[in-house]
Amino acid sequence: MDKAHQQVAVIGAGISGLTAGKMLKDYGVSYTTFETSDRIGGNWAFANPNGHSSAYRSLHIDTSKDRLSFKDFPMPEHYPSFPHHTQIKAYLDDYAEAFGLSDHIEFENGVVHAEPDTDGGWRLIDQAGAQRDFDLLVVANGHHWDPRLPDFPGTFAGESMHSHSYVDPTAPLDLRGKRILVVGIGNSAADITVELSSKALGNHVTLSTRSSAWIVPKYIAGRPGDTLFRTSPHLPLSWQRKAVQLIAPLLGTDPTMYGLPPADHKLFEAHPTQSVELPLRLGSGDVVPKPNVARLDGDTVHFVDGTSGVFDVIIYATGYNITFPFFDPKFVSAPGNQLRLYKRMFKPGLDNLVFMGFAQAVPTLFPFVECQARLLAAYAVGQYALPAADEMERVINADQQLHAGHCTDRPRHTQQVDYFVYEHDLRCREIPAGRERARRLDRVAS
Amino acid sequence: MDKAHQQVAVIGAGISGLTAGKMLKDYGVSYTTFETSDRIGGNWAFANPNGHSSAYRSLHIDTSKDRLSFKDFPMPEHYPSFPHHTQIKAYLDDYAEAFGLSDHIEFENGVVHAEPDTDGGWRLIDQAGAQRDFDLLVVANGHHWDPRLPDFPGTFAGESMHSHSYVDPTAPLDLRGKRILVVGIGNSAADITVELSSKALGNHVTLSTRSSAWIVPKYIAGRPGDTLFRTSPHLPLSWQRKAVQLIAPLLGTDPTMYGLPPADHKLFEAHPTQSVELPLRLGSGDVVPKPNVARLDGDTVHFVDGTSGVFDVIIYATGYNITFPFFDPKFVSAPGNQLRLYKRMFKPGLDNLVFMGFAQAVPTLFPFVECQARLLAAYAVGQYALPAADEMERVINADQQLHAGHCTDRPRHTQQVDYFVYEHDLRCREIPAGRERARRLDRVAS
Repeated sequence: MDKAHQQVAVIGAGISGLTAGKMLKDYGVSYTTFETSDRIGGNWAFANPNGHSSAYRSLHIDTSKDRLSFKDFPMPEHYPSFPHHTQIKAYLDDYAEAFGLSDHIEFENGVVHAEPDTDGGWRLIDQAGAQRDFDLLVVANGHHWDPRLPDFPGTFAGESMHSHSYVDPTAPLDLRGKRILVVGIGNSAADITVELSSKALGNHVTLSTRSSAWIVPKYIAGRPGDTLFRTSPHLPLSWQRKAVQLIAPLLGTDPTMYGLPPADHKLFEAHPTQSVELPLRLGSGDVVPKPNVARLDGDTVHFVDGTSGVFDVIIYATGYNITFPFFDPKFVSAPGNQLRLYKRMFKPGLDNLVFMGFAQAVPTLFPFVECQARLLAAYAVGQYALPAADEMERVINADQQLHAGHCTDRPRHTQQVDYFVYEHDLRCREIPAGRERARRLDRVAS
Repeated sequence: MDKAHQQVAVIGAGISGLTAGKMLKDYGVSYTTFETSDRIGGNWAFANPNGHSSAYRSLHIDTSKDRLSFKDFPMPEHYPSFPHHTQIKAYLDDYAEAFGLSDHIEFENGVVHAEPDTDGGWRLIDQAGAQRDFDLLVVANGHHWDPRLPDFPGTFAGESMHSHSYVDPTAPLDLRGKRILVVGIGNSAADITVELSSKALGNHVTLSTRSSAWIVPKYIAGRPGDTLFRTSPHLPLSWQRKAVQLIAPLLGTDPTMYGLPPADHKLFEAHPTQSVELPLRLGSGDVVPKPNVARLDGDTVHFVDGTSGVFDVIIYATGYNITFPFFDPKFVSAPGNQLRLYKRMFKPGLDNLVFMGFAQAVPTLFPFVECQARLLAAYAVGQYALPAADEMERVINADQQLHAGHCTDRPRHTQQVDYFVYEHDLRCREIPAGRERARRLDRVAS
């Protein structure tokens, strides 16, 4: 069909959906964004009525504003180094306003079902029950909203919750004067552990982790840590990680220094945990470190080192599933968060389907989705063509090896991407190569 | 008189009074300790009924346990790096128990008046109203209990309190959902600012400082920062401070990096503020930095940079006065916290009076008072003699210059002492020299 006149559907108006819309609009592509909520922002819309925000009241982003800014829409000068979620939301509102994105969004009208039609397009059913037909489908529904829970043997008699539901020490549970076990070691686990171990709350807080994590300070030498390092796309990533791993001891990144289990991966092979406060709380005895949970037994939790403890509450800060509620799971799903995508965007064999934002880009996610949006828009107007499916499979393997290194197949690690390497690859290699492929296709067709 | 049979009075059973008692007992000296409270520990007895504890519920000591331990009574192995105040209190209880110190303490019987008698001794009046006579008086009543308040022009219509009274975010004031100004930049100011700026409390917190301070992390490279540096008594202190000042930028110690005013002194010339959390809160916008207060006007506070703000509460974390309520102020007092003492212990001209613990020893106070106690005990049994008063005056000037450097006469800086240099001086020079002076006196007398 005529690429210049195709109709595009975008699922979600979070950062991925917004940047997709912005770039499609720049390229003059006709598109509609479906959003279950009454507002934009997805995860960054605190208390989002659609239930898809995991933001807690105290959440500050762990990426500095300089690294976080969209390239084409800088953050306000007066913002602090690590903005609060309310500031991120205001920034996204300004972004949507500046580029007139809301006009394209159908609010409170998500996609409940999506399947390929017989003409090579898509047949969607929206929340209102209407059938909607499109040529190209962009999946930007996020990957931080469907709580993943561990499967520990036994049962726990106290209260359990996932960090997704955590708001503050009084909501949704009254977490004062309690014996609390936090399971996990990501940024949410660290933030919630620090907040709940404040002496003023009278809690006893224990932190349990299976895979552990490297702990990186948000500030190094008085500057946001992520502004000091920048991987070069011109040197092997493994060498650069090795160099950082050599100086890491100076930064106190090793979790075993604070009584936590050793990390099961090398530094930067998985998203490090950014916290200056967690080491202090562990070193002050306000948080007790434990290895993985072995089993649950009434109000007692047994750990794999043979120790045990009695708890009132368990908070599972154990991450999220990648879920596509609008697809038949037999058609597209991501069991164990495995989602093999070419350049983290295309599923080989499904040329009219584009994924946006399905990566754990280090150190920054916002410009990552922005550069994905550039490729999307080029693709939507026929200025980018995909390689053959077998070539895509080969590249997926090589990229996975490059970005996640020797990392295991743990759900937490599958999406690891180095932003600088990725962005350079897309801008300098992949988009030009796709443009060349598109030209060859045009010559063949004419 | 016969030194071996003199009666010693110790005022206070905090760390200074306890170590004084322990060492006097070791030397077989007869002594009585007067304590206004029903318990030992002074500042470290949280909610001390005598009102002399400034500990807040969340307080952890800012010295690591390795540096903090008394040399003759190590801290328990299982203690965390930075113990909580309850652990310090338990440690002091164990110390008193191990050396049988409580038997010598008259609890709830402080000294209300002390003056020299006509025989070269002391006449005390205790709380019970009794007259008590002693030969030697040891003043160990602490210098962190009498709140010092700044004298800003104008009046403030909201609530004001000194950090001395601060317990937690709900006591003695309800500090939730409030606009709060914290004045000061010491460790208490940093701790209270961090605690009250927790998003969970819904406060807006502003931090104002006049003299500013260098901010040192509690952990460096994953180890307690104070275990990594140790001044040598064999090199000029000014050179060593210069060396640390050169690497300080790597630690992000400069307050201007976080929007605070520049420090009015060089690093380690005054007690640095130890906080890993304060820079983070400032960099996250959760705490607003301001320079000194210019004037108060109703609910508005004007700052010296011309800005202003509206506040519900002001917390003055502005330090303490050195106060001796049992002395006639015309006899002994410390206006502006100026207290000229030979080796921080002796007031020239008052040979039967010894001060204990009147210093801001960096990095540690506990072994500092312990080494003062050694000199005290040697003095009490006649194994140490003082030099002539004019020599003492000369040494006071030289020591002040050595320890406090180019520092101004601000009350905060007057007591600055480098522990390692001080301890080496007392152990290797001053006590042997005093012993030699005592021998000469004996020879003259016999």
